[in-house]
Amino acid sequence: VEASPVKFITLLTDFGMQDGYSGIMHGVIYRIIPDAHITDLSHAIHPQNILEGGLTWYRSYSFFPEGTVHVAVVDPGVGTNRRPMAARLGKYFFVCPDNGLITPILEAVEKAGEPIEFVHLNQPRFWLPQVSNVFHGRDIFSPIAAHLANGVPLAELGDRITNPVRWSIPRPIALENGWKGEIITIDHFGNLNININEQDIRNPQNLRVRIAGQDIYGLSKTFGDRAPGELIALIDSDHSLAIAVVNGNAARTLNIDLGEPVEVTW
Amino acid sequence: VEASPVKFITLLTDFGMQDGYSGIMHGVIYRIIPDAHITDLSHAIHPQNILEGGLTWYRSYSFFPEGTVHVAVVDPGVGTNRRPMAARLGKYFFVCPDNGLITPILEAVEKAGEPIEFVHLNQPRFWLPQVSNVFHGRDIFSPIAAHLANGVPLAELGDRITNPVRWSIPRPIALENGWKGEIITIDHFGNLNININEQDIRNPQNLRVRIAGQDIYGLSKTFGDRAPGELIALIDSDHSLAIAVVNGNAARTLNIDLGEPVEVTW
Amino acid sequence: VEASPVKFITLLTDFGMQDGYSGIMHGVIYRIIPDAHITDLSHAIHPQNILEGGLTWYRSYSFFPEGTVHVAVVDPGVGTNRRPMAARLGKYFFVCPDNGLITPILEAVEKAGEPIEFVHLNQPRFWLPQVSNVFHGRDIFSPIAAHLANGVPLAELGDRITNPVRWSIPRPIALENGWKGEIITIDHFGNLNININEQDIRNPQNLRVRIAGQDIYGLSKTFGDRAPGELIALIDSDHSLAIAVVNGNAARTLNIDLGEPVEVTW
Repeated sequence: VEASPVKFITLLTDFGMQDGYSGIMHGVIYRIIPDAHITDLSHAIHPQNILEGGLTWYRSYSFFPEGTVHVAVVDPGVGTNRRPMAARLGKYFFVCPDNGLITPILEAVEKAGEPIEFVHLNQPRFWLPQVSNVFHGRDIFSPIAAHLANGVPLAELGDRITNPVRWSIPRPIALENGWKGEIITIDHFGNLNININEQDIRNPQNLRVRIAGQDIYGLSKTFGDRAPGELIALIDSDHSLAIAVVNGNAARTLNIDLGEPVEVTW
Repeated sequence: VEASPVKFITLLTDFGMQDGYSGIMHGVIYRIIPDAHITDLSHAIHPQNILEGGLTWYRSYSFFPEGTVHVAVVDPGVGTNRRPMAARLGKYFFVCPDNGLITPILEAVEKAGEPIEFVHLNQPRFWLPQVSNVFHGRDIFSPIAAHLANGVPLAELGDRITNPVRWSIPRPIALENGWKGEIITIDHFGNLNININEQDIRNPQNLRVRIAGQDIYGLSKTFGDRAPGELIALIDSDHSLAIAVVNGNAARTLNIDLGEPVEVTW
Repeated sequence: VEASPVKFITLLTDFGMQDGYSGIMHGVIYRIIPDAHITDLSHAIHPQNILEGGLTWYRSYSFFPEGTVHVAVVDPGVGTNRRPMAARLGKYFFVCPDNGLITPILEAVEKAGEPIEFVHLNQPRFWLPQVSNVFHGRDIFSPIAAHLANGVPLAELGDRITNPVRWSIPRPIALENGWKGEIITIDHFGNLNININEQDIRNPQNLRVRIAGQDIYGLSKTFGDRAPGELIALIDSDHSLAIAVVNGNAARTLNIDLGEPVEVTW
């Protein structure tokens, strides 16, 4: 991939929005690329939640222009010997700590047979001159992203590696006539994202979805197909199964959290 | 209106900031207009609150450059037969579901006698190739906004319509010497926005404002005119009546919510 | 300092993200500088918390390109006789109410011996034509920032002043062999920022940090050096002392708030 003439960088972190941490990353990038276009994908990943960060990143990255540099920092190991890394995966660049954040995207790119290249960021001349032990988002990942967007080749930024850390993503278990999955993320609306894909569901109109002792029959096409307050199952915008309460908050209504089992049978 | 040489797009949704939904809309727009300037007006409209979304939109739109394309997605009916629509109202373009979100702006533009043109978005060639039933913000509204900002005429995006859905905005009731209104929005500070306009208030210095069993006498010019903790009434930055607690949170102090009646007499 | 060819403006306020207030400021700026690059540093300063706003501003401003115009609005005195002001301090421009927000940055620039120039914004021709008593962020500070970024000299925007209001920043008290400080801000992660600087700490490996009846021995290099759940002290990314719970929230764990005393001895 060639860097686009307009240089796009996205940021995804667990830094929150109150302390100026994400804004500082913009500043560091602008000092290197004054005309960068920076998008804040999310700064509200739950603190240290690498799986949520990785899945949110995976659902977002491919909607951006080719060549976009995507930065993610959910980094409980900042300043330890976990490696900072950068990658070219398919048509995009990625910058993140080597702690499993990249796993969902890496798996998708592997499945698609697209190009894969990782480097260990070990060339401090591309970092800020002074590196704090606790804010690599500012001191390493932001300047690296800017240099990548500027066209600096991956190979100059560090040594090639082939063994990025992989996060164990919960997989559904095959049943005789269905799947046993679980809630892997919960969105702003309280909708529950289940680790079962659209293509693995057969006979959607005769489906039974069981969660927290309640049964849902059939898939709805969308929220407004049923009455407000009703518990429904449907295919989400990322082609996976979701459970929602129409005009309501399923997580609060069912009083459940990540990891709750969900059984789908037909 | 001509599209400005710099292309401005604003986004207002109830999507929240955690899941990457609003960032994805940036990506979709940048793929069509690499040099767009995108402003996030708000992604914290309370879920499915069309009135709050419409009023927040109304208070914001006119401060942007002429030709700006304003997108709003508060869309409980996504994927049902509610129409996606676009409009030119006065000097701006608007993109939203046809569910009443546009009502406050439409009424202002009608009152000003400015040009009005609506289309039903029914030309899928301007959408993303694949349209989810649950995320038209990504698949329909964002690409349409980009094409509008790029100068594609409204008439190419869909068939003209003249009957957009109108939301019933609560009106104040005239009293012999005053008005009976209600709280229509509550802002981040806990300030209460009342549906009574500055120009409808006579004799502001002898005013009595009654809310939740408490009386406020006279209008303050601004917050700092009275002592911290005091309950005051004043004219807000949108020229309507507001009730506030100096350096405090009126909604929490009075323990009240939207719809609470407010009586103004002189 | 010369304004950079790309015009950078940052915004820091206590306006929150729900009401469109910060987005409106973008619109006002774009009407004056269509190609401005605007960064939202934070809109989540706690309402009316001038000290938190000033310290967050101080930690962020110097990471931006030289010539950046930094706007801060935490303004309980909006519309009273407190002065709106603008300044050139070192390599940057600043726009804010004259209420002490600028103090931490001003002290740093004074210490560095860099140029200092303040003006009282009293030239309404550079403001929006209509000025509300309650939203100077929109009506005065945003257009002033845009004109500054456009190269309008400070001296045209108002009369020179030399006595900006200074906020009393809590200072640590020297002990025989250490310091008695306090919590001055608490970040998104619940990490506690203490008003004791790295350079004032001697003998870091034999340090004892006492907070809320608990003792911490020695400074950690970073979070991941100790076990999850452990209470640690470390040097933060702004070179001051911080107290944290590894992968946890120190403010919640210790159930403490701003102002809590912290004793450091060696």
